[in-house]
Amino acid sequence: MALRPPPIPPLDAASAELARSRQGRLTKPPGSLGALETLSIQLAGITGMERPSITRKAVVVMAADHGVSAEGVSAYPAAVTPQMVLNFLRGGAAINVLARQAGAKVVVVDIGVAADLSAEAGLSHRKIARGTQNMAHGPAMTRAQAEAAVLVGLDVIEAELALGLDLVATGDMGIGNTTPSAAIVAVLTGAPVAEVTGRGTGVDEAGWARKVAVIERALAVNRPDPADPLDVLSKVGGLEIAGLAGLMLGAAAHRLPVLVDGFISGAAALIAAGLDPAVKPYLIAAHQSVEAGHRRALDHLDLRPLLNLDLRLGEGTGAALAMPLVEAAARLLNEMATFDEAGVSDKAG
Amino acid sequence: MALRPPPIPPLDAASAELARSRQGRLTKPPGSLGALETLSIQLAGITGMERPSITRKAVVVMAADHGVSAEGVSAYPAAVTPQMVLNFLRGGAAINVLARQAGAKVVVVDIGVAADLSAEAGLSHRKIARGTQNMAHGPAMTRAQAEAAVLVGLDVIEAELALGLDLVATGDMGIGNTTPSAAIVAVLTGAPVAEVTGRGTGVDEAGWARKVAVIERALAVNRPDPADPLDVLSKVGGLEIAGLAGLMLGAAAHRLPVLVDGFISGAAALIAAGLDPAVKPYLIAAHQSVEAGHRRALDHLDLRPLLNLDLRLGEGTGAALAMPLVEAAARLLNEMATFDEAGVSDKAG
Repeated sequence: MALRPPPIPPLDAASAELARSRQGRLTKPPGSLGALETLSIQLAGITGMERPSITRKAVVVMAADHGVSAEGVSAYPAAVTPQMVLNFLRGGAAINVLARQAGAKVVVVDIGVAADLSAEAGLSHRKIARGTQNMAHGPAMTRAQAEAAVLVGLDVIEAELALGLDLVATGDMGIGNTTPSAAIVAVLTGAPVAEVTGRGTGVDEAGWARKVAVIERALAVNRPDPADPLDVLSKVGGLEIAGLAGLMLGAAAHRLPVLVDGFISGAAALIAAGLDPAVKPYLIAAHQSVEAGHRRALDHLDLRPLLNLDLRLGEGTGAALAMPLVEAAARLLNEMATFDEAGVSDKAG
Repeated sequence: MALRPPPIPPLDAASAELARSRQGRLTKPPGSLGALETLSIQLAGITGMERPSITRKAVVVMAADHGVSAEGVSAYPAAVTPQMVLNFLRGGAAINVLARQAGAKVVVVDIGVAADLSAEAGLSHRKIARGTQNMAHGPAMTRAQAEAAVLVGLDVIEAELALGLDLVATGDMGIGNTTPSAAIVAVLTGAPVAEVTGRGTGVDEAGWARKVAVIERALAVNRPDPADPLDVLSKVGGLEIAGLAGLMLGAAAHRLPVLVDGFISGAAALIAAGLDPAVKPYLIAAHQSVEAGHRRALDHLDLRPLLNLDLRLGEGTGAALAMPLVEAAARLLNEMATFDEAGVSDKAG
């Protein structure tokens, strides 16, 4: 394999322990901030700082098209992918609204949209191909394309880190992309296709049955090897999924926490963890999506989602909504007074 | 009954319908923003505006002591109540950190702390009594005190509304206050005491059993009438719980959305809904607390919590953490482009 992602260090156990100890001295009953205490300790381990600070934030939205859309697996036409990219660039999409509120920049990457967007300013032009091939008939892409797409993710996060970044959130846009995501989750978790296939943006019962049949056909035609994540990615994956996997690996290599959005990002996280399991402790699951296969992916990764709001939009919206919670975890650890500082009596016991 | 809370109007159905229709035209699959779409429509109905805006925010923390603390129902000494009030005033508590992040002011009200705080600046001085009486031996307070405490909540919210307010969150401080809260939830939902009694700030198994026994004794001694919320409040309630109930009624009367924090606020919401069921559609449940009785209270009120982070701190911390979600619901409705505006193709079907 040509692809050599940078090495990922283990979490910093000493910093995590200092944060855990500090949580015990803050003016509240021990453990009473629940998941936010756990998260603050994870952030300390990730960053190597006893009191991490989350101020510079970005949502990276990878956009690409999918040959499998030709099978009628989505409720929307493929033309919506470039239309939504333009909507992102103009600030009118849900992710723009939520990122503005969270104080995060939005980085939109054309990694494989099936339209010429080369004239668009404000877009990161990293197109590997004009969409993937139809996986129902053969591999979605070549292994070289899959590797190149992972490298785009690595590149993009390196560039953002150079500008200064404390937290990255993953996002996606690609009509049809719940289909490759379901295929990936089925292969890498061993779950039956029907169990991990959902309604995407809203197909009806017949559309859902067609989607399941298409994925089963793609798996039969391509026989992806579960032990080889790049094989899975190239045969039944997507360019944005590959890019997000690369982004996660690159972030972890640089001790940057990654907020993982919903189903598509979950599939990318499975690929990333397949390529290097050391990425896992750097991941923070933003939310539990409505998509059937998402829970399976999160369980496989031992991730517990912060939010459960019945979202199924993608774009990084769930991750942007979870950003204030990550920031809150860090701020509570940083800014709360200790029992000593505040002159508050600690527990009698 | 002397207490006459102001009348609460029904939600504005026309504004809610306009918001629902607008949600269908925004650039996303219908329903894909899940609970945030529902919430945005609720906000439109509450405020009477098709596109509500949530900018001015406050957390009102009502603080009081509880005679029942003498029974050893809490892991902390009662002295912690005034100590934590001082911590709030100095900005070192969890609620201060979270409110700063959310851009919300913190209004701290001494409605019944068992210490002289009259010299403290920045505190709202509305003390009804130096804590309640021990409900294990007789009524926690007189009916007149309960009414006066509800009126304090009405007054406090009127004063904040006069300064300008778009969203209020409820918060509490009072060592021992999960005990009266459990008693209220048991009486008003009909649940067995053991089912709605939790560990509070962290009592052990023996402490929990003592707490259940104390609540059962209080109910046997006082025989509160479930059909008369003020009777329940005065016999087994708390001053901060009464104040929060009044605050909810006053907010609803003025079409202000109320973010209801955890278990203590949930008990207050049961009292408020008992006094006037019209308050219910103005309430937004911030989170699902670890406390055993909280789910029972929310179910009784038909409220679905936005967050589930294993919190059990109180102070309004869960409500402050949910504020960005409420703001996001309003902003998405306000700021997202429609399909027409963005030139995005709507669903083929």
